[in-house]
Amino acid sequence: MPAKRKIRYGMVGGGQSAFIGAVHRMAANLDGQIELVAGAFSSDVKNSQTTGEQLFLNPKRVYGSYEEMARAEAALPAGERMDFVSIVTPNFLHAPVAVAFLKAGFHVVCDKPMTLTLKEARALRETVRKTGKIFALTHNYTGYPMVKEARELVRSGKLGKILKVVAEYPQGWLLDKIEASGQKQAAWRADPKKAGASCCVGDIGTHAENLGRYITGLRIDELCAEFTTFIPGRKLEDDANMLIRYQGGAKGVLHCSQISCGEENNLNIRVYGTLGSLAWQQEHPNELKFSPKNEPARILRRGNGYLSDVAKNLEAIAAIRANAAGRRGEFDFPTVDDGVEGMAFIETAVKSAASNGKWTKFPKP
Amino acid sequence: MPAKRKIRYGMVGGGQSAFIGAVHRMAANLDGQIELVAGAFSSDVKNSQTTGEQLFLNPKRVYGSYEEMARAEAALPAGERMDFVSIVTPNFLHAPVAVAFLKAGFHVVCDKPMTLTLKEARALRETVRKTGKIFALTHNYTGYPMVKEARELVRSGKLGKILKVVAEYPQGWLLDKIEASGQKQAAWRADPKKAGASCCVGDIGTHAENLGRYITGLRIDELCAEFTTFIPGRKLEDDANMLIRYQGGAKGVLHCSQISCGEENNLNIRVYGTLGSLAWQQEHPNELKFSPKNEPARILRRGNGYLSDVAKNLEAIAAIRANAAGRRGEFDFPTVDDGVEGMAFIETAVKSAASNGKWTKFPKP
Amino acid sequence: MPAKRKIRYGMVGGGQSAFIGAVHRMAANLDGQIELVAGAFSSDVKNSQTTGEQLFLNPKRVYGSYEEMARAEAALPAGERMDFVSIVTPNFLHAPVAVAFLKAGFHVVCDKPMTLTLKEARALRETVRKTGKIFALTHNYTGYPMVKEARELVRSGKLGKILKVVAEYPQGWLLDKIEASGQKQAAWRADPKKAGASCCVGDIGTHAENLGRYITGLRIDELCAEFTTFIPGRKLEDDANMLIRYQGGAKGVLHCSQISCGEENNLNIRVYGTLGSLAWQQEHPNELKFSPKNEPARILRRGNGYLSDVAKNLEAIAAIRANAAGRRGEFDFPTVDDGVEGMAFIETAVKSAASNGKWTKFPKP
Amino acid sequence: MPAKRKIRYGMVGGGQSAFIGAVHRMAANLDGQIELVAGAFSSDVKNSQTTGEQLFLNPKRVYGSYEEMARAEAALPAGERMDFVSIVTPNFLHAPVAVAFLKAGFHVVCDKPMTLTLKEARALRETVRKTGKIFALTHNYTGYPMVKEARELVRSGKLGKILKVVAEYPQGWLLDKIEASGQKQAAWRADPKKAGASCCVGDIGTHAENLGRYITGLRIDELCAEFTTFIPGRKLEDDANMLIRYQGGAKGVLHCSQISCGEENNLNIRVYGTLGSLAWQQEHPNELKFSPKNEPARILRRGNGYLSDVAKNLEAIAAIRANAAGRRGEFDFPTVDDGVEGMAFIETAVKSAASNGKWTKFPKP
Repeated sequence: MPAKRKIRYGMVGGGQSAFIGAVHRMAANLDGQIELVAGAFSSDVKNSQTTGEQLFLNPKRVYGSYEEMARAEAALPAGERMDFVSIVTPNFLHAPVAVAFLKAGFHVVCDKPMTLTLKEARALRETVRKTGKIFALTHNYTGYPMVKEARELVRSGKLGKILKVVAEYPQGWLLDKIEASGQKQAAWRADPKKAGASCCVGDIGTHAENLGRYITGLRIDELCAEFTTFIPGRKLEDDANMLIRYQGGAKGVLHCSQISCGEENNLNIRVYGTLGSLAWQQEHPNELKFSPKNEPARILRRGNGYLSDVAKNLEAIAAIRANAAGRRGEFDFPTVDDGVEGMAFIETAVKSAASNGKWTKFPKP
Repeated sequence: MPAKRKIRYGMVGGGQSAFIGAVHRMAANLDGQIELVAGAFSSDVKNSQTTGEQLFLNPKRVYGSYEEMARAEAALPAGERMDFVSIVTPNFLHAPVAVAFLKAGFHVVCDKPMTLTLKEARALRETVRKTGKIFALTHNYTGYPMVKEARELVRSGKLGKILKVVAEYPQGWLLDKIEASGQKQAAWRADPKKAGASCCVGDIGTHAENLGRYITGLRIDELCAEFTTFIPGRKLEDDANMLIRYQGGAKGVLHCSQISCGEENNLNIRVYGTLGSLAWQQEHPNELKFSPKNEPARILRRGNGYLSDVAKNLEAIAAIRANAAGRRGEFDFPTVDDGVEGMAFIETAVKSAASNGKWTKFPKP
Repeated sequence: MPAKRKIRYGMVGGGQSAFIGAVHRMAANLDGQIELVAGAFSSDVKNSQTTGEQLFLNPKRVYGSYEEMARAEAALPAGERMDFVSIVTPNFLHAPVAVAFLKAGFHVVCDKPMTLTLKEARALRETVRKTGKIFALTHNYTGYPMVKEARELVRSGKLGKILKVVAEYPQGWLLDKIEASGQKQAAWRADPKKAGASCCVGDIGTHAENLGRYITGLRIDELCAEFTTFIPGRKLEDDANMLIRYQGGAKGVLHCSQISCGEENNLNIRVYGTLGSLAWQQEHPNELKFSPKNEPARILRRGNGYLSDVAKNLEAIAAIRANAAGRRGEFDFPTVDDGVEGMAFIETAVKSAASNGKWTKFPKP
Repeated sequence: MPAKRKIRYGMVGGGQSAFIGAVHRMAANLDGQIELVAGAFSSDVKNSQTTGEQLFLNPKRVYGSYEEMARAEAALPAGERMDFVSIVTPNFLHAPVAVAFLKAGFHVVCDKPMTLTLKEARALRETVRKTGKIFALTHNYTGYPMVKEARELVRSGKLGKILKVVAEYPQGWLLDKIEASGQKQAAWRADPKKAGASCCVGDIGTHAENLGRYITGLRIDELCAEFTTFIPGRKLEDDANMLIRYQGGAKGVLHCSQISCGEENNLNIRVYGTLGSLAWQQEHPNELKFSPKNEPARILRRGNGYLSDVAKNLEAIAAIRANAAGRRGEFDFPTVDDGVEGMAFIETAVKSAASNGKWTKFPKP
């Protein structure tokens, strides 16, 4: 039956001037399979209403708070009710909003980092398990076909045993203290109450970590981190460098920055193994460089017949559709478990940095 | 009033296995401002219905022919009727379908090349003028922000007087005779009855010409063309090289190919002036290289504050919305006049190639 | 015996402010196998002496004219006499200097274009044959290992049958009329009496032609050329665009320019065949892109074990050494025959351009 | 007087199969200002003689040991004696050879790392000071014009205050245990007795450190290092990752590797400041990317008029020539002080790695 209609979703957060929400809506529209039907876009009711109007929503389904939205949507008849909620709020709201909608019977697609603390992440995982609902984390970079191809190269043994991973995520947008002059995106990210214990690592370092784990399958054994707050008066770090020891012996370098002048979204990764290496960068996402040992490097490009048969985009939506149809299946999207791993990463990095870069063990998931 | 709802559109062509249609639908969804409500996706009714189902359309608005669609949609009440039609059929249907919908009172967004012949293009222009409807051609490459920035650099005088233009569009997908084994996209493009007098120039050379004209504002004075059909048994050219003389004295090289192994969609252009040059390539669309005389080259990247305030994407939709609201304005999209220019280009190239590369005058628009 | 000593050479041309001479001297020193022992660096005796002093030459072997040098060097005892002469003068002197030294018993390494006219080139070829001396043309780009590898890819059949060749050589250094303000390099190149019938094609277009012929082995059947003199008052063309028909059916585009703002020495070539394509550019000379059909592109880099066993650099020197030792062998360097081909190319291009781009047959060698 | 002749030099090390020696000889020949006149190329006399023969040296000046060479060359008359010695041996010989020649009255050009230990480096510095001879270290990468331009950008304040430095030097040539199968270059580098306490950091990490210091002028305050020996049975590290704290507050990431499959000599650096950033990579040495804040990135290319008037190559030779002429001057080449810094870097990294990555203070020079 859901095969005959678009999947319907609502959104919490993403009001006017909240660029992440807009980005998510665009991505969500991409294949014409889903439609936005409801929203609580802002704690400012006026902002929420204006946003809803610009998105041509039925004004009755534009809400003043997420609690009201969860209640009201759950009360709608099945033929009208939304299928899932997309959470694009500042970090501190992720957990309460997710729990509210999970308990109201909705699937959840949630921004990263998943929660404010590892403890909260584990609790959320518990709620997901109990409710049996689908929970997807928007580590969107792992949705790129060439990232999936990269993972496939590792899995198929083309790189041999992994020795070294270098992951970077430099940005430059916080080189000025724009949180002080009312830039909303900067304001909540630089505020420990809304962002949690980390700014740079929580916002983008976690993408680099997730990308490395996704491609290599390696878990961190311990790490040693150096956080820096370069801009005077900022409360959280705006730059972080780490050395990593992976389980099984591979080594890693991970660094991220929000004060690297001239950088936009230069997420990139290199993975070196005993039989080959690969390199991918977000700013040229359709290319993957693969260098087999003693052979010329190969440039793999999206959409070609020589690629492996790896899953394509928007797997979370496919899972929701399958679930609605009572089916199960193998889908490739970041789950609540990835969210817990991400929080473990952030907390371990914060802890190491706070102890002058002591090598710090990664906790059990 | 249309500010309160999405713009509604229908589609002619684009049935299953017709990749251009899918591409257009994706692009159209991009900003959540428009929605697909009707379609005649294929001359094969079954295909049309299946496509409509996959797109979650109301089955009553999935039609067996474009004539039926034009009639039926025109008969719907204003609150339900579509606003414009998107034509993504093989070339030979562009003109009749466009005329049918223009006369039925709809705006039109149409694939290039606009028609089969220059004569037909001029007639269509006449119909557009008479009906007063909006007609937009999908030379989508000129919608890229960095292409608009390139035009702005030329207009503002940063390049000085233009001396030389090199435009290329190499592809490799017709290196095998795949039209013989049922590949639909190849089949109609290689068939003179459906594609017109040209395959390679009509399909992609025209993009290169349009891109050059868009950026520089230069019109061709005369050209000298060499067409080649490399694949035995193919009826139209699969490769074309041209020398160009622009009005005012600039010179050009334009070449396009469908048999260039390893090339995907490598449209690119370089423009050299007395004060600077620029280079842009479709495969890295967010970058524009600008080389001012005696200074280091600059890499301009999309989304930065240093860019000029040029119009952004989806201008045709904005024009349709403004029109619906009774407003007029300046919009930047390829019009029926560009379509006429495009057909003039194709016919001139065909004529020159047929006369052993004689320099051939460009006709009056 | 010459195995025990460096090869000795003299130079005609290349006085102070003549950059080509300096470039050649650097290249010649590269492997420590040869040494400069004599020179007639300038028609200005003072300039010649100063240059000789800066190069630490014995003042007795710095000459006031090439005639004197040929005579005096020939009169030296075998253990002291130079082995070959390197000619780096303006074009009009190539033939007389070469003939003088060939007749005096010296091998010759000569700049391109070889002569002022095709007729003169054929006469020089005759002299080379009669004297039995080695004559090498400095089309230095074909000495790059990755260019040799490119030729090897074609020869070994990896590209299949060649369909299309695109060769470019844009420069920007003559965008201003610097020949009018005493820049010597520009002055003679823009002077028909010293450069011959062509400026841009003779100086750099000929490199593009030679590179294409070297890699593909294809000879031009006919071509159609458009010459432009963009800078007012200049006597020869500073920009040229051509369409080419090769023997056997391949097609080509070749363009070169000296007024392309922002370009330095951007010689580059792409060769497309039925089984693969290759791309090489002089500004990244150690990389060769090879795109086999239906496979990812490969980036071949100099110095790796996966390369073929093609000849390395400075083959002309090896030939001279072998000759001195009474041996013969297979050496890969541009000869007097390449010089004749080059002059045929220039004359055909000039002829076609002079007849409004008429397709013009390439003469018999 | 030395203005009238080439500077003469001898070489210790660099026998057949020793590629570094060959590389140095090529570089040394580059401008025709110097000539090789003597050598003790190998501890294997036969190898030394063969090498001398291939280089066309007078057999009397090809020696069986460096001690003999120092003695014999010092005994030659001034008009014949060499001006300086170039040391291209394995690391453990650098100090004794340098001292022998300094005391015999010769200037010295020496490979990096300068010595086996920091203590030995300080002692060598003492000898240099006492003898008053010129001592140059071959950190050749700092000789690139675009590296000098990078330093100039920093010095002139174009980058503002430096915040972060990322320096990398990945190679892949030791991915197999080639030292076990007789590859000489690998054999001594992997042997603690000949290479010292470090393989990867001593051989290439030190280049990355020197490059960073050269460009930014920043000294390391403390660092935290992770060494790994990935290849079983190897005695020294073949991969190293470090976090760095610079004096004044900047932070750094430095990593180097000899087991990174597919990497050749990919030395590269990025420097981020408050007003701009720069990026340079050795594999495209003629380009320097400079990104001023809020402006497009600029690509600076070697040889253009817009570059600053920074010193050009081969400064050590210029210093030697000036010295011979009794002149003094400002020359830009790595000195014995840089060698001491380099050894301090290596020892600090070794110490930190040996203490499980403890942050370790950089010693006083």
